[in-house]
Amino acid sequence: MTGPQPGRRAGRPAKPLLNRELIADAALDLVTADGTDGLTMKSLAGRLGVSVSSLYNHIAGKADLLTSVQDAVMSRVDASAFDSVADGPDAADTLAEALRTWSHSYRQVFADYPSLVPLIATMPVSGAPATRRMYDTVAAGLLAAGVPSAQVVPVIVAFESFLYGSAMDVHAPAGIFGSRPGEQDAPAFRAVVESFTAQVDAGKDAASSSASPNPYADQPFEWGLDALVSRTLTLLG
Amino acid sequence: MTGPQPGRRAGRPAKPLLNRELIADAALDLVTADGTDGLTMKSLAGRLGVSVSSLYNHIAGKADLLTSVQDAVMSRVDASAFDSVADGPDAADTLAEALRTWSHSYRQVFADYPSLVPLIATMPVSGAPATRRMYDTVAAGLLAAGVPSAQVVPVIVAFESFLYGSAMDVHAPAGIFGSRPGEQDAPAFRAVVESFTAQVDAGKDAASSSASPNPYADQPFEWGLDALVSRTLTLLG
Repeated sequence: MTGPQPGRRAGRPAKPLLNRELIADAALDLVTADGTDGLTMKSLAGRLGVSVSSLYNHIAGKADLLTSVQDAVMSRVDASAFDSVADGPDAADTLAEALRTWSHSYRQVFADYPSLVPLIATMPVSGAPATRRMYDTVAAGLLAAGVPSAQVVPVIVAFESFLYGSAMDVHAPAGIFGSRPGEQDAPAFRAVVESFTAQVDAGKDAASSSASPNPYADQPFEWGLDALVSRTLTLLG
Repeated sequence: MTGPQPGRRAGRPAKPLLNRELIADAALDLVTADGTDGLTMKSLAGRLGVSVSSLYNHIAGKADLLTSVQDAVMSRVDASAFDSVADGPDAADTLAEALRTWSHSYRQVFADYPSLVPLIATMPVSGAPATRRMYDTVAAGLLAAGVPSAQVVPVIVAFESFLYGSAMDVHAPAGIFGSRPGEQDAPAFRAVVESFTAQVDAGKDAASSSASPNPYADQPFEWGLDALVSRTLTLLG
């Protein structure tokens, strides 16, 4: 950036102004590293190199700060495919595609911030404009496809419950269901774990596009997603 | 309790012997109150009024302790309905019933311990006998109904992802999707939230059997559960 910015006095060094987005990004870094307990107005001011009182010019306090963190995370979820959903002969196909694209994005965003799942899963969306925009896009798409109005929230919440759990499962260790040598109990369970892992391992090259640290997380996710998408399509008039 | 217990010397005061179950229950109390960071061998010994070294006679360390906590929680999940699943003409009905009963129990147990969801969702089941028994019962029931072996784990994991998220949603505030007065954005979203809450509020007496602190959590849960159960039934031969 060259020269003074409009509205700023010439001669003063260019320094990013403090705003909600900068504060939210720094808060997101802090909360990711240290959990919500580590996020205080004081720790955040320290990280940004500003005074606590200057933070209060932009953020009302800890609750507002967490709302801004929620908004920073939710703004990364891509719901744009719902804009292409229209009533008519393509409604089911475009809705299914939108639900899938959104779900993949949503799961990935929360897999990037797994420690925020319990927080954001129970946080009010009031005062979080990007979050509300995301929900509005999803709701408008479901309505456009023909999902009855009173059924839209249950659909969204059921998807989200599944997506929050799926985001955590991305971080489950690959051997979560394994047995120690000599652990001879649970024979039916050991058998199904063996057939499943053998199947995934046999197809590993095909699935290597997965960014999941747990290679066994993708198939359950896709299966559950199919279940929810199929059921949603039965709601169309 | 009167008189000495069998196998204990007469004259000694009756005091419960330290065992894994007692330790796990105390650890569960501690971790529920203070989170996993508050659970150390030292804090646990203090709570039980025993020495740290006597704990080590039963528990190998923190990781083993967390496994015992997982087992204490998972042992409360009722999977017994899967024992009634049999191949034949009733397979679909009995499997659907088992999946529903198990899912309701699972969600309720984790709604009782929401802070343990992220921990247990990613914890290996090796060394946790009650947990393995639960999975064995579920796996045997799915196999008995005719779900292909390699598909059993994806079904279980998809259900669990949904159940973990649903358990968290039980603790979402009832007004999580509400708008502040004057918050005029997100019109489609505001409309669907209004129709949904009006519908739930109108049927409140009928749904008063719900133990959920969030009255709006049950309908999304039941809808998603239906989706997963229906999809599971399509896997039967």
